[in-house]
Amino acid sequence: MAINEKRTITKQSIDFPAWYQDVVREAELAESSEVRGCGIVRPYGLKIWELIKAELSRRLEDDGVENVYFPIFVPLENLEAEKDHVEGFAPELAIVTHAGGEELTNKLAIRPTSEAAMYKTYAKWIQSYKDLPLRLNQWANVVRWEKRPRAFLRWSEFLWQEGHTAFATEEEARAEVMKMLGIYQDVYSFMAIPTFTGRKSENEKFAGAVMTTTAEVMAKDGKAIQGATSHYLGTNFAEVFGVNYLGADGVSHLVHQNSWGLSWRSVGAVVMVHGDDNGLRLPPNIAPIQIIIVPIYKDESHDQVLSFCNKIKDDLKVDYRIKVDEREGQTPGFKFNYWEVRGVPVRLEIGLKEVAEGKVTLFRRDNGAKEVIIVTELKNSLKTIMIDIHNSLYKQATDFAVANINRIESWDEIGGQVGWFEASWSEDSESEKQLKEKFGIVSRVLLSEKEGIEPKNKKCFITGKPSKHDWLFAKCY
Amino acid sequence: MAINEKRTITKQSIDFPAWYQDVVREAELAESSEVRGCGIVRPYGLKIWELIKAELSRRLEDDGVENVYFPIFVPLENLEAEKDHVEGFAPELAIVTHAGGEELTNKLAIRPTSEAAMYKTYAKWIQSYKDLPLRLNQWANVVRWEKRPRAFLRWSEFLWQEGHTAFATEEEARAEVMKMLGIYQDVYSFMAIPTFTGRKSENEKFAGAVMTTTAEVMAKDGKAIQGATSHYLGTNFAEVFGVNYLGADGVSHLVHQNSWGLSWRSVGAVVMVHGDDNGLRLPPNIAPIQIIIVPIYKDESHDQVLSFCNKIKDDLKVDYRIKVDEREGQTPGFKFNYWEVRGVPVRLEIGLKEVAEGKVTLFRRDNGAKEVIIVTELKNSLKTIMIDIHNSLYKQATDFAVANINRIESWDEIGGQVGWFEASWSEDSESEKQLKEKFGIVSRVLLSEKEGIEPKNKKCFITGKPSKHDWLFAKCY
Repeated sequence: MAINEKRTITKQSIDFPAWYQDVVREAELAESSEVRGCGIVRPYGLKIWELIKAELSRRLEDDGVENVYFPIFVPLENLEAEKDHVEGFAPELAIVTHAGGEELTNKLAIRPTSEAAMYKTYAKWIQSYKDLPLRLNQWANVVRWEKRPRAFLRWSEFLWQEGHTAFATEEEARAEVMKMLGIYQDVYSFMAIPTFTGRKSENEKFAGAVMTTTAEVMAKDGKAIQGATSHYLGTNFAEVFGVNYLGADGVSHLVHQNSWGLSWRSVGAVVMVHGDDNGLRLPPNIAPIQIIIVPIYKDESHDQVLSFCNKIKDDLKVDYRIKVDEREGQTPGFKFNYWEVRGVPVRLEIGLKEVAEGKVTLFRRDNGAKEVIIVTELKNSLKTIMIDIHNSLYKQATDFAVANINRIESWDEIGGQVGWFEASWSEDSESEKQLKEKFGIVSRVLLSEKEGIEPKNKKCFITGKPSKHDWLFAKCY
Repeated sequence: MAINEKRTITKQSIDFPAWYQDVVREAELAESSEVRGCGIVRPYGLKIWELIKAELSRRLEDDGVENVYFPIFVPLENLEAEKDHVEGFAPELAIVTHAGGEELTNKLAIRPTSEAAMYKTYAKWIQSYKDLPLRLNQWANVVRWEKRPRAFLRWSEFLWQEGHTAFATEEEARAEVMKMLGIYQDVYSFMAIPTFTGRKSENEKFAGAVMTTTAEVMAKDGKAIQGATSHYLGTNFAEVFGVNYLGADGVSHLVHQNSWGLSWRSVGAVVMVHGDDNGLRLPPNIAPIQIIIVPIYKDESHDQVLSFCNKIKDDLKVDYRIKVDEREGQTPGFKFNYWEVRGVPVRLEIGLKEVAEGKVTLFRRDNGAKEVIIVTELKNSLKTIMIDIHNSLYKQATDFAVANINRIESWDEIGGQVGWFEASWSEDSESEKQLKEKFGIVSRVLLSEKEGIEPKNKKCFITGKPSKHDWLFAKCY
């Protein structure tokens, strides 16, 4: 698709958002559509999402969660039933007013999330304590109209999974919130991305939740990406939709509910965490192509080199997603660059010299290292190399994140911060609003391991009031 | 979920549509939602769809098709660009008029299918003959507002895959139409369902297509279900959206396009083809649970029997989707019925006698046969039994279909037909409209193997005009 066209990627240090846009386009992950705010996800980008989805799906299934599918349409009156919920989502709704050639008497919202679509039905399904816990998940598209869209991170339509569970007790529900958060953290680790997990502030929690927990990711420009969230909804929705169960005690109780979700925004996080000035860098677990073989030949060595390349591909294709770039009329240099932009973790360069010596030249996208490997040792070497690439990307991301969190003690220090900062905070709502207004910064997360631990400073860095915890703060996508 | 409630399934012979509704509900496949015409697919029903999807997905990937995701919203002007297309779909559209708190200047349709959503972008992606063929697929939800909804078969929102491909020549495009039709036939065979494949009449083809091919399924009441379709779109959409390529000849050409789709209507076909008066019967390939173990114990043998059951489960769980029904407080008889309604192919009954003798009693849902099998031989026996169940269901469905297609020669014979009939037909549009008006019957398919073969009768059974082919006719869902 116009592969000879001149390609350019802005440097990260010059304009990070422009760099991001460039990589998304040049790596053919996605592009804008005619419908403002909605994107087209191309095969290479969608495959990354499918690999993330497969891993999360496996984890959910192992944990006994079952999949369900509810309609995309939500009656407006359902959405309006939970006051905080509708306040949070009303500004972002897309509304269907006409269908089947007629104006609808009851307008329908397109689901921005499915609490209001599902829980009336939960009330029917749940009768007795024997029906609990109910743990369902939905893979679906949702719509939240975006004023400032950004590829993967903020599109008006996005793909995600949303888990919706119901328990007899608060204790069980809260335990699951943390378990799911742990699963999200694991899935991000699968992508070689470290996350900072814990509770959100009252201002930043999900509309309608009692408590929101989050897995926060640091992008390479020091902004935060909300990677996934796991909410304890308490009995807020159960009251509104009448989700009761008859307990073993013979008495009717409200269920305690959770919801939790991870979207293809995770693909955006992969780009922003691992990418460099040459484009994407993918960890092997989620690379659509893990090994690209680039043949280097002249006319007379064409067949010999290609057949050697294909033999290696055939040897490795059971264990790896692997491809030989057989395109004619393109130089090896062009192909090197083409696959570097796309972040393929390993490139094998094979010319007549390699064929003669039974060797391959292996290039690692993560660190640019090259080594020559004897073909008979390739399989063994690759095992180690793939693990090493994963670990190396994970370590780079972790080191970067840790290095970019400063500790601050006062309002005066905020101005100079480029990355995240940690501070002891009173969780005063007004103070967070000031912070947002003045600096565009909000609290991101109270690290779960810090719950119950004394803050480093007893005085809130904004209000001077008593602070209970240390929080992380950042600008965010 | 109220499992003690009295359950009833209408007999097929008394009221087939009522039987269908009952099975869908009692097997917990799906239920109606608050939004008229839209359904809720429950875990057991969705898992059947996921198993069908996995098989088709594997086939498409093997064939080199890549997945893509386009927005759910289609600008109305795109839909209106192809005249036949919009005429076909306009009555079924759902329209978004407001989003993000504002009235939209350009109203958006929710995709009823994605030709009009995708092909403007195809025009950008396709520049030269080197970009062809382009073969993409989308797994998505679509909306076609239904006046007369029916679970799985006709819901206003449904899940499907839609393939959209572009080729340099008509010949290549038409060859792919038939290849995809073959894949659909294979996927139905995977569900133990025979299909009748071939071309649709001009009246019955897809709105905007040059030619539609179909895989037709016969339900047990003798009606037809359109199981999947594969269309040759010619250059109709390419003209409208400007999808051109520069040929090797240096000249600009229009691409030849196809689209092809299979939806979760296939789950409805499974119910209507294999089900009986006791509920669902599932072929092993698509059974969410392939083997259910029902322990039969008294208080004193409880632990011994259960541990034997779980040992067997552990031995088989690598090869089968298997479960022990450990629910307390339910009789074995209740459990037998529960899993029969849900169509689980194999039940193992295990009591103290079986434990003592190292045997299990095996019940087959497809034919009701019981046999006693020595535990050490169970693994081997199951291999044969599962294949036999699949073949037996496939044979029953095939025999039924063949037995319910009558050959007729004249208009006068139509009245008495309950199943399908074959007749020599001129393909005269008006005559088909009469047939539809008078009997609710339409042509279903011109069997592909009959293309080019002389019709049995040279005179059309309706008009008396020369007939070129033998066609199948039926009422349909």
